[in-house]
This record gives sequence, structure tokens and C-alpha cells, in this order.
Amino acid sequence: MTRLTSDAKGVFPIAPTPFHDDGRIDTASIDKLIDFYLACGSTGVTVLGQLGEAPKLEHTESVAIAKQFIARAAGIPVVVGVSAPGFAAMRALTREVMDAGAAGVMIAPPNTLRTDDQIVGYYKQAAEAIGADVPFVLQDYPLTFSVQMAPSVVRRIVMEVPSCAMLKHEDWPGLEKISTLRGYERDGSMRHISILCGNGGLFLDYEMERGADGANTGYCFPDMLCDVVRLHSSGRKDEAKDLFDAHLPLIRYEQQPGVGLAVRKYVMMKRGLLASAAQRKPAAPMSTTTQQEVDQLLRRLARHDKRAQL
Amino acid sequence: MTRLTSDAKGVFPIAPTPFHDDGRIDTASIDKLIDFYLACGSTGVTVLGQLGEAPKLEHTESVAIAKQFIARAAGIPVVVGVSAPGFAAMRALTREVMDAGAAGVMIAPPNTLRTDDQIVGYYKQAAEAIGADVPFVLQDYPLTFSVQMAPSVVRRIVMEVPSCAMLKHEDWPGLEKISTLRGYERDGSMRHISILCGNGGLFLDYEMERGADGANTGYCFPDMLCDVVRLHSSGRKDEAKDLFDAHLPLIRYEQQPGVGLAVRKYVMMKRGLLASAAQRKPAAPMSTTTQQEVDQLLRRLARHDKRAQL
Amino acid sequence: MTRLTSDAKGVFPIAPTPFHDDGRIDTASIDKLIDFYLACGSTGVTVLGQLGEAPKLEHTESVAIAKQFIARAAGIPVVVGVSAPGFAAMRALTREVMDAGAAGVMIAPPNTLRTDDQIVGYYKQAAEAIGADVPFVLQDYPLTFSVQMAPSVVRRIVMEVPSCAMLKHEDWPGLEKISTLRGYERDGSMRHISILCGNGGLFLDYEMERGADGANTGYCFPDMLCDVVRLHSSGRKDEAKDLFDAHLPLIRYEQQPGVGLAVRKYVMMKRGLLASAAQRKPAAPMSTTTQQEVDQLLRRLARHDKRAQL
Amino acid sequence: MTRLTSDAKGVFPIAPTPFHDDGRIDTASIDKLIDFYLACGSTGVTVLGQLGEAPKLEHTESVAIAKQFIARAAGIPVVVGVSAPGFAAMRALTREVMDAGAAGVMIAPPNTLRTDDQIVGYYKQAAEAIGADVPFVLQDYPLTFSVQMAPSVVRRIVMEVPSCAMLKHEDWPGLEKISTLRGYERDGSMRHISILCGNGGLFLDYEMERGADGANTGYCFPDMLCDVVRLHSSGRKDEAKDLFDAHLPLIRYEQQPGVGLAVRKYVMMKRGLLASAAQRKPAAPMSTTTQQEVDQLLRRLARHDKRAQL
Repeated sequence: MTRLTSDAKGVFPIAPTPFHDDGRIDTASIDKLIDFYLACGSTGVTVLGQLGEAPKLEHTESVAIAKQFIARAAGIPVVVGVSAPGFAAMRALTREVMDAGAAGVMIAPPNTLRTDDQIVGYYKQAAEAIGADVPFVLQDYPLTFSVQMAPSVVRRIVMEVPSCAMLKHEDWPGLEKISTLRGYERDGSMRHISILCGNGGLFLDYEMERGADGANTGYCFPDMLCDVVRLHSSGRKDEAKDLFDAHLPLIRYEQQPGVGLAVRKYVMMKRGLLASAAQRKPAAPMSTTTQQEVDQLLRRLARHDKRAQL
Repeated sequence: MTRLTSDAKGVFPIAPTPFHDDGRIDTASIDKLIDFYLACGSTGVTVLGQLGEAPKLEHTESVAIAKQFIARAAGIPVVVGVSAPGFAAMRALTREVMDAGAAGVMIAPPNTLRTDDQIVGYYKQAAEAIGADVPFVLQDYPLTFSVQMAPSVVRRIVMEVPSCAMLKHEDWPGLEKISTLRGYERDGSMRHISILCGNGGLFLDYEMERGADGANTGYCFPDMLCDVVRLHSSGRKDEAKDLFDAHLPLIRYEQQPGVGLAVRKYVMMKRGLLASAAQRKPAAPMSTTTQQEVDQLLRRLARHDKRAQL
Repeated sequence: MTRLTSDAKGVFPIAPTPFHDDGRIDTASIDKLIDFYLACGSTGVTVLGQLGEAPKLEHTESVAIAKQFIARAAGIPVVVGVSAPGFAAMRALTREVMDAGAAGVMIAPPNTLRTDDQIVGYYKQAAEAIGADVPFVLQDYPLTFSVQMAPSVVRRIVMEVPSCAMLKHEDWPGLEKISTLRGYERDGSMRHISILCGNGGLFLDYEMERGADGANTGYCFPDMLCDVVRLHSSGRKDEAKDLFDAHLPLIRYEQQPGVGLAVRKYVMMKRGLLASAAQRKPAAPMSTTTQQEVDQLLRRLARHDKRAQL
Repeated sequence: MTRLTSDAKGVFPIAPTPFHDDGRIDTASIDKLIDFYLACGSTGVTVLGQLGEAPKLEHTESVAIAKQFIARAAGIPVVVGVSAPGFAAMRALTREVMDAGAAGVMIAPPNTLRTDDQIVGYYKQAAEAIGADVPFVLQDYPLTFSVQMAPSVVRRIVMEVPSCAMLKHEDWPGLEKISTLRGYERDGSMRHISILCGNGGLFLDYEMERGADGANTGYCFPDMLCDVVRLHSSGRKDEAKDLFDAHLPLIRYEQQPGVGLAVRKYVMMKRGLLASAAQRKPAAPMSTTTQQEVDQLLRRLARHDKRAQL
């Protein structure tokens, strides 16, 4: 059983939850997804995140999905989103997925937290609730959760809660935050943690320059994310940026709150990674215009990256 | 099986969830509580609300508690709070408690809703998710949920979602809102619904004057709430106000966010309604000073209401 | 020229801004108001606060009003609200009113502040902008401003910004906060500051017990606030509470956001302190029902306090 | 005197306010800026917006800056941001700048507005306060102001407030919103208004496709914005997109809240449009790393657009 550690690097794609058009879970596509993630060099995978439509799943479904991902993940760590309004539900899901072999869990802050003490206190209580032996990912996403964590608050959590192994960094703007956190490590005031970046990858090019360890996001070309991280890590930074910039118009388009998930699933369906682009209800349908725009973005991208020729 | 209807009147106390000091559910106190509610003239009861520590309960515990309340409620309607971040969990809990004989459910809005359309859309989807045959209580509590519903939005929900049976009114200030809603009924633009009032009862005296049907709150003297509603309804309004005013210093004290639940459980323990004042973790302990202040408030109240002589 | 100091005690009423029915400033009522405040024992006065309709005043009007209050205040300190979205406007108003003899200014936090560092940083910048020699009141009112200051944040401001002389305490619940702050003073980690309480006076009875120095609010019976603080300070606590409790139904009614100011001005007009209850536009008119309810509250109050016989 | 009309098209750059290093207003750069805007084909200009550091200006400074822009604008309309916490300040500034020849004003919603009625009511009151004859721009920017306007709310404002001439569209995601609003015009339920887009230009390519009339944003290459709108409008859409995509990495980088303005001013200084990149205090300095990243982004951009060779 792989445990998530603070040395994690590379790309942990955020997996969408595949559904059939009628709302049933599409288990065949789960296998296809995870096989693809492995093939393109992902070093982990995160399931049941915000864009995994977790709130639309009943508890038993969540557990079944996590188990299927874990079973087929061939040893790379699987992180499971367990954010919940109460610690009871969080603990219950954590217990089951950890028993099934999850590497750790991801916890987003409830959007009522305001003061530094409230935020730190919440993560202490959460870590106690799920068990001090369960590694967790701290999700820092103020745009969606309205919770703003100063770098010093991240440091307090890291230092006061030993089971915090990774930061899913999606503050915006967050480049200086990464620099500050890595500075804390250098000056000895914070132990090292893994920093993987979200925000749809919109700033991945410079997040890597600032010291991030990779990506933890669901962009519809996870293989591109793996390439960019690989190229950057091997010193081929210009190539990394050229590839990244070619994808940026689509990354930006997919990063729209609301319609973003529909775009992501649509492209992944066109790529053969999902049998259907369906979201479970309630879901906003993608307009025809949006679809045409995505098709155009793919055509334009295909001039630079053949994988977009669909 | 009693179903909640839009003609509900009187007092539906919000029941706290009784715990032993070690965090186990105190089933004996559940029986004691419901017997007390019946004895003092409650016309219904609401369980697993915001102050019922619902988020600290695992799913099976929630179901068990609801079932015990229902079994002993002797025919008065039991409403169960089912608010959840996703419709899957909401539907699952609703299904089980309705099968067990609940009269209806209560649904609070997620605090991310902003526009009128978002709020109406949410309740339409929720009603569809739990089943159009399940009566529900619309909880309007902007102070806690940050969701502001204009009277016209309440009207849209009432008119577009037939299973909306009751408004738990706790907007603040809300007196004009009650008047506006009752005006909609008079001018024929909205069907009649039951309006029971929350906010710890802080405005109950004038809410009754404005046309509310009673109270739906957890103040530690539910018997006083029953008396006030009874006196008011039988035309003895000055007596109702005299009794209410005597309790107001304590009502106000208990209405403090955060410490309020501790105060409520402490007084209910002193009254013999709960074996312990314990909250399940995480819970802020009540300070000694707070306890002394509550004791003093009770002593002062006892000069007017013997029930406070504890 | 009186300067506000951290030893301030007693009652600083929040003065409403008197208008004629046509929206012009009613200068005669300003004199009447300040004479009344002096006569009933106020130890200071605060003008142009949230409920002083400051945002409806042009700069020159604000300055004129402040000057008139200062000129007639006979030596008691006049604090002027200078909260503004930018430091330029804040500095400009501060400069003029301090030149005219104001004792200090009051600064509310912009509602976009979230983290501890943001809040402390804001007050440092504000103090620098208005000048380090200008004493200011820190307004802590999360219900209205959505800014939550932990006690440790108040301490940081007090310790890092020497010109912070007073806390206008209106956190809710805030009793423990007062105890914590006074505890900081006792353990030597924070210098002493004056704490006067707002929130319409709703918790004044127990705020005094916790160590507050008095009230800083606009309740329509400032003379009662003065009596309560005087009785409490001279050890006649039961008398203080009896008087306070008699007023609580009206205090609570006036403390409704939105309609509260209309209620306050209406009662002050009935008391002869204002020539008109008019608010400058835009203003929500008070309904006939509200007026009748206030009249009833006054009649009921008059049984205990003759001053309410109007 | 040019008045803003609902037929406005093209690019209205949001002008930064130029400062010397010591915080004084740099009037020479104001002339340089406006000359540049005219030379590159801007059809209007907006001054004293959010990123014009308006809150750091005293009233007389704001008026002086607006007057200078207007005097040199050679007949293209100048829109002045007049957002303020109160209508008095808004009216005062509007009066002065309209007298000086401004074409209209821009009004952002206060971030306390929630319900549809509150938003519509606010704009009705604002329009009445500034005068029904003053054309205004409705700023719809939920990311910054936390105010969410459904398309139906925009329609209500347009239909109920005749002086609303333009929408500064910066909802995100907002493509469907533009389509919906243009659909309202086609089905006759809303009169035509001008829609210019903000958000740093991040979605300008597809906003034009959806029916926007152009851009109203402060990106450091306003000449590129003019080119893109011109190319798009003349049917050369692929060229427009090629140029836009080349700028996207920098657009995205500049669109970071907080540091964005520093980046913008830095590039404009390098381009010779500003004598200094200084912001008036309080301002966060740009880190050396940020500066190096911007330099790199410019070098990479220069491969496609010579104007970035600085």
C-alpha cells in the first residue's frame, strides 16, 4: 500500500467521475482513464475532488469508485477527496478508502472559515478526526472556497499537523506564495512539503519556476501536463513553455467556473477517454456555441500538438 | 403517518441531540426530551437541525436518532433536517427517514447561492431529488447561511415547488417580510404556507403579531414558547408579552452564535431534560464565567417564571 | 483640545445626523442633541458613524457637521467616523476634523479583508495615512463588515499601532473576547485600551461585567445607557440590570439592521431630540405597523421608566 | 461634448493613473498615454477605474486627472469611474467631471448587494442621484465585487434605467451571458446596449464571437486590443486569434489580482508610455522574480509581435 509522502512530485491528474448518459457510473471508463494516466507518466491520481462531482454521489458509490481506481492504479498513489461539512462523514469515508488502499485524502476548508486561528484549528480537528496516521492534502483554493490562507497559515498547519503531506496550490495569484513557502523551507522555519498546482494548470509554467513539484489538476490533456513537468524538470524549459503556450487558449477556456467541467468531459470523450460527456444531474448542459468554440480551439491547437487532432 | 402540511401551527421545538460525556448518543434523554415536548403542548418537533449537531453524526446515527424521535412522537409531526452539500446525500437521508415515518424534511440553502434564479433553481432541484411527494421546510436564515431571499423569491419557491409546506423564518429583521408574505396570500399571488419562526425566538412576540403561525426554535424553555403562542392565539396578548419579556434577557444571551448551543444544553441539563450538557467534538467548552452569567440570568428570570428556579 | 486616550470610560453616544424632511441638515437639532448628551452625563460623543448616514453626506457637509458638534461639546471628546474606501479621502477628512478640534477618529475595516495579516496591515497603513499622532478607534463589527478579528489580531493592532486608543467592541458573541483582551492586559502581553461597546447595547449588562469601560452606541435612550454604566460602576448592579432589562425589548427591536435607524430617529423625535425623523435619501420608510409596534414598546417600557411616556 | 451612447464600439482602454516615484501625479505621462490611445485607434477611454488607483486620490486630484484626459482626448469619449460608498460623493464627482466634458461615468456595485431587487434598486437610486441625463456604464465584475447579476437583472437595469448605456462585461465565465443578452435584444425584450469586455482581455477572442462590441480593459498592449477588435470586425478572425494567442501568456500573467497592476505599469514604463511604474502608497512592490518573469514573457512574445521587443 503506497502512502502519500511530502516528497511527491510529477502529475496527479484530478480524475473526473465517468457517467453513462442515464446517470449510472461508467466503470469501464474508470479503467480506461486510469490506464491512460499510467501510460502518460502520471505519478499519482486524485479522485472525488471538486470536479469529480463528489457531492452527487451516495456514500457507497464514492467508496466503490475509489476502490476501483485504487485497484487498477498499479502502485501509484491514489488520493481521495473527503471534504465534508462534518467530521463524521469525513472520517467515515476516510476510514473506508484508506482500508481499501488509498494513499491519502484531500481536505478543502469549509467556506465559513475566516481568521488564521479558525483555519489552523479546522485542520487540526480534521486531522484528529481522520486519524493522525492518514496523510492529507491541504487544498488552498480561495477563488472557490472563499478561504484565504496567508503563507504563514500554511506554515502553521504544516508545522502543527504532521500528517499534512502536500499542498494543492490554487491560490491566485499564487506565484509569490510558492516562493515564500519554499523560502520558509530554506530558512528552516517549515519542513518540506510537496506542492502540486491546480487552477486548471493556468500558471503551471511559472509555478514550476517558483519551486512547485508538479501539477494536480484535471485539464483534459493530462499527458501535456506530464510532458511540461518532465521537460521542465530535465532543463528543457523553452520546450516546456512552447508546449504549454500552445495549450493555453484551451486551458484558459476550460478554466471557466461552471462550464469548465462540461468542456473537460467533452474533450475527454472526443479523445476516447470517456464513453460519454454526461454529468450527473443537476448539470448545466453545454451550449452548441460552446461546443463549436471548443472544436475550434482544438483545431487551432492541433497545429502545434497532434494529440488535439480529433 | 403524519405528513407536514401548510396548515401547521404552534411550536415545533428544534431538538438538540443528546450526548453522553464521552460522545455516545444518549438515547434515554431523547425519550425524555420528546415526552417533555409533548407534555408542554408542542405541535411538532424538528430534529437534526443546525443546532442538532447533525454534521457530527454519521449517516446511520442520524437515521437512528430520527427513528427514535419518530417512534415516540405519538403522532405529532417530526421534521428532519437533511441539508447536505450534495443531492445524493440529501436524497439518501430523506428516503430513510420518510420510510421511518417522518412528516417532512428541512432544507437550508448552501451558502454559495447568490442570485434569485440560483436560489429558486436550487429548491426546484432539491425537491426533485428528494421526491415531489416529500413536504419540506424552507429555511430562510441569512445571518448563518449568507443567502438572502427576497420575499418575491420565497413566493417563487412556494408557487413553483408544490411540496414546500412551511417557511422556517429567521431572516433578521424579518417582521416586514412576514407581513409581505401574508400580503401575497391576501392578494392571491401566493398560496398559503405555514410560517414558524426561528432566530432563537428573539422576535417571537412581534412575529406572532405579523401573522406567523408559531415558533420553530430551540430555546431552552420550549414550554414558554408554547405558552406565548397559546396566550397570543387566545387573545391574551399582554400576558404573552409579559411572559416573553421576562425571558428576553436569557433568549438574547442564548442567541449568541457559537456559545449559544452550550448555554442551551446547560440549561436543559439543569432542567432535567438532558443527562449531560456535552456536545460531541469539536466543541468549544463553556467558560466558568458564562456558566455564572447563565445561573444569574436564571435566578433573575425565576422572579417572574418559577420554572427557572433550578 | 481634548485628545482621545486609552483611559476613556462611560458613554459615547453615536449621534444620528439630523435632517429636515426635505433632506437639508437640521443644525438646530444638532445643538439640541449635543446638549442632551451633555446633560445626561455622556463622557464623549461619536459622529458620522455607520448610522450617522455618513455616506449620504458630501465632504463639506461632513466637515460642517463635525465642526458644529465639536464647537458645542464643551470639552468632552468628539470622535469622528472617517472610514472610506481609500486612504486619500480618509486622510483628507481626518485632517480637517482634527484641525477643528476632534478628539480622534473611528475607522471600520473594509469588508474585503480576510487574513490576520491583511487586517493588521490595513490598520498600520491607515494609521500612517492619517498621521501617527491621531488617536483612533478600532471598530470591530463582523456582523456588518464581515471582517472577523481574533483577539490576537486586536492585540497585534494595539501593540503595533500606538495611536489605537479604543476598541468599539461589537463582535457578537463578544463576551469572551472582552475577557480575553482584559486577560492580555493582565498577563502583560497587551497595553491597556479603552473598550466601549456597540451592537445597540444589546449585551451591555454583561459586557460591563466582563470589563468593558462603557457604551458607544446610538440607542434612542442614551440617558439609560449612562444610567446603566453609572449604576454598574458604583456597584449597584441589580438596579443596573433591572433598568437594562426593562429597555431590552426596545433595544432588541431597534437593533434590527435596516429598519433600526428609522426606529431610532422616530423615538428621538418623539422625545424632542430631533425635529424630524427623516433620513436622507435613499431611505426605507418605516411602515405604519412598525410605528405602532414601537409605540406599544414605549407604552410597555413606560411602566418601568417614565422617560418612555411620550 | 461627446456623450456616451449605447452604440459605442471598439476599445476603451482603462487608463492607469501615472505617478512619479514620490507619489505625485505625473501629468506629462497622462498626455503621453492619451496620445498613444488615440494613435492606436482607441474609440474612447475610461479613467479612474478600479485599477486607476482611484481610492488613493483626493477629490480634487480625481477631478484634475479627469479634466486633463478630457481636454486632450480630441473628441473621443472619456468615461470616469465614480463608484463610491455613498451617493453624495458619487454625485459630487459626477457633476464636476460631466461639467468638464466627460462622456459618461462608470458605476460598480457595492459588494454588499445580494438579491436581484437590491441590485436593480441600487442602480435606479444611483442613476437618480447622478442625474437621469448622465449616461453610465454598468460594471459587472463578480470576481472582484462579489455581486452576481443574472442576465435577467442586467436586462431589468437596462429597461428600467434609460441612462444605462453600456455594460462593462467582466463576469467569468461570461460567454453565455453575452449570448443571452444579445438574445434578449433579438427577441425584443431588451433594448440594445454597448457591451465592452474587461477581465484583462482574457476572453476577448470569444467575447467578440459572442457579440461583444469590443474591449474596455487596461492590458499593457492596448494597441493589440485595438488590432484584435479591428481584425475581428473586418472578418479576419484567424489573424485576430493568432495575434491574441501570442499575447495570451502575458495577458494571463497580468490578470493576477494584486500584482497585476504592478506588471501593467512596469510594461507600460518599458514601452515609454509611463515615466515611472510607481503606484501610490499603499502598494505591494513587484518582486525581482516577477520582473524577470515579465521580461521573459515579453521576450517570448516578441517572437510574434515586434512591439514587445523592449
